[in-house]
Amino acid sequence: VSELRRDPVTGRTVIVAPERAGAIAWARISSSPRDPAARDRCPFCDGHEDWAGRELLAWRPHGLPNGPGWQVRVVANRLPALRVESQFAALPGGLLESLGGLGAHEVVIDTPDHDATIGRSSADAVARMLWAWRERMRDLRRDLRMKSFLVVKNVGVLAGATEPHPHSQLVALPFVPIHQDDEVVGAGAYFRRTGRCVFCDVMAEEISADTRVIGHDDSTMAFNPFASRVPFETWVTTRVHHAAFEDLTDHDLHVVAVRLQDVMARLEAALADPASTLLLHSAPVGIDEPASYHWHIEIIPRLGPVPGLAWDGGIHINTVPPEKAAEALRQVIGGEAVGAARI
Amino acid sequence: VSELRRDPVTGRTVIVAPERAGAIAWARISSSPRDPAARDRCPFCDGHEDWAGRELLAWRPHGLPNGPGWQVRVVANRLPALRVESQFAALPGGLLESLGGLGAHEVVIDTPDHDATIGRSSADAVARMLWAWRERMRDLRRDLRMKSFLVVKNVGVLAGATEPHPHSQLVALPFVPIHQDDEVVGAGAYFRRTGRCVFCDVMAEEISADTRVIGHDDSTMAFNPFASRVPFETWVTTRVHHAAFEDLTDHDLHVVAVRLQDVMARLEAALADPASTLLLHSAPVGIDEPASYHWHIEIIPRLGPVPGLAWDGGIHINTVPPEKAAEALRQVIGGEAVGAARI
Repeated sequence: VSELRRDPVTGRTVIVAPERAGAIAWARISSSPRDPAARDRCPFCDGHEDWAGRELLAWRPHGLPNGPGWQVRVVANRLPALRVESQFAALPGGLLESLGGLGAHEVVIDTPDHDATIGRSSADAVARMLWAWRERMRDLRRDLRMKSFLVVKNVGVLAGATEPHPHSQLVALPFVPIHQDDEVVGAGAYFRRTGRCVFCDVMAEEISADTRVIGHDDSTMAFNPFASRVPFETWVTTRVHHAAFEDLTDHDLHVVAVRLQDVMARLEAALADPASTLLLHSAPVGIDEPASYHWHIEIIPRLGPVPGLAWDGGIHINTVPPEKAAEALRQVIGGEAVGAARI
Repeated sequence: VSELRRDPVTGRTVIVAPERAGAIAWARISSSPRDPAARDRCPFCDGHEDWAGRELLAWRPHGLPNGPGWQVRVVANRLPALRVESQFAALPGGLLESLGGLGAHEVVIDTPDHDATIGRSSADAVARMLWAWRERMRDLRRDLRMKSFLVVKNVGVLAGATEPHPHSQLVALPFVPIHQDDEVVGAGAYFRRTGRCVFCDVMAEEISADTRVIGHDDSTMAFNPFASRVPFETWVTTRVHHAAFEDLTDHDLHVVAVRLQDVMARLEAALADPASTLLLHSAPVGIDEPASYHWHIEIIPRLGPVPGLAWDGGIHINTVPPEKAAEALRQVIGGEAVGAARI
């Protein structure tokens, strides 16, 4: 079983989960993206429902639970780093605090299509993935011990993906991790100073400057943030203020899906199907000032290994100014790059 | 020229340095570690002093500056991300704050031996590398605009190394980056509560528990920290309290070199010459409470890509408890693994 360990200096929490070593070794054997027989062994493909495990949620127009015919499907991680059955009580240990591995660790199988990418999917298919994230977050939020959610979608080996079939991971935590707390604290301080949401103000400033915006309308916006950490870092969110992703309506999910599909098509064309990490940031449960925080998706192209200087929240040296990235991404039309993006 | 950009939410600082793109492209061409002709093209090998640039410091028993015969050599980065000639004034930009790329970005050529590793070097050679770090930090500290130093030594492509020849990078910054501030703030709070250094207390607790210590004596200690983020994360520091690395004496450097060489020999044997990142953490210049902070080296084996969940200070899932890592590393004798370490 896993445990949560607190760093005695920074308070950073690490999940120590020895049983996950088996998951990684197993994935190394099972995942060969270039192998035509890979689908026959893929635990996430249609017809292999038993391999991925009992479903927690599915979008299935026809057919029976745990059988084929689904469009999106959520299962418990076979070797979860965290479990809802665990306790979150500190074990005695002086300075070195260990807590039970309480939480949830679920796998969202985004689509039955083994080779899909967001950029080559329909907006409806992307909306179903977002729907699955939202529904699971709404369900897990009923467990009052859960304080924050992370959704991460890794594509490609450089992003640490262990299965080629499109999937995302949903993690529920009984605490707010420090990298999210940095955002919450910064946005909270801005709100107390100005009475406004810093994300809403940044979007207004970006639209006014018009040098880092990839696309926007009254509902949604995609842009390359001013302090982009890596080449072509891209954020997507709603123009209307929502602190928590799980508060979005079905209509909101649809317009976000349209924007996300468009911007991923541009990134896939400009960067030739890059490895990438997509991170969903949503307000912690019970945040003090919901008016201060604004949910958003961060898309991180993984064009190379993380250099030592940037490791674990270090200093990023970005060689492509976001203004250049936005210029290249705006020029992609219909999923085709107009001239090659240079990185 | 580069600029420092502040994230408007978290205050995280990113270096935007378009000219560095050339450095990376150039390194891709020049660095082919397996190619026997690689030394002929290596800018860091003896006899190629002109290629690496004018030296800022060298340990050279015989010979002339900028010529052969050195044991360790420091040069300015050819395409620096930061420059001492820059200004650190904010450019007008409302919410989106840009600062000139002030700082220093130097390259330490750790040894003339193209194929050296720390584990296969003499303690004297390792001490010369530490000496170069310390001397450059002492010199740069005289520039009162510099507030913190980072030293990073990347080995291998997975660590983002762009040259195979052993080298380290020294970065001086006109601010304290948030990942270092997290340490300073946490250690400061502990000091105000207890009157003691948290790092000293952790070492005492580790020696008492004796499950995560690789080796220690009255001068130095190497251990796998309780909340290790990745398999075989290893810390090395002095038992005696020193806040800043640049305050170590020549004798201190020598005993640290002996410990660092020993522990790297163990890691290299147990993990079969892993890619790795070595990070030197030293107190920011002018820290409020020097009694609260304790310099240390963090060795991060880079056994795979950084998964999306852990990217940029996210959540680490570590599959090897540090107790298992320490057990494996203690069993390595004379640089040979006794049984294979399993990760």
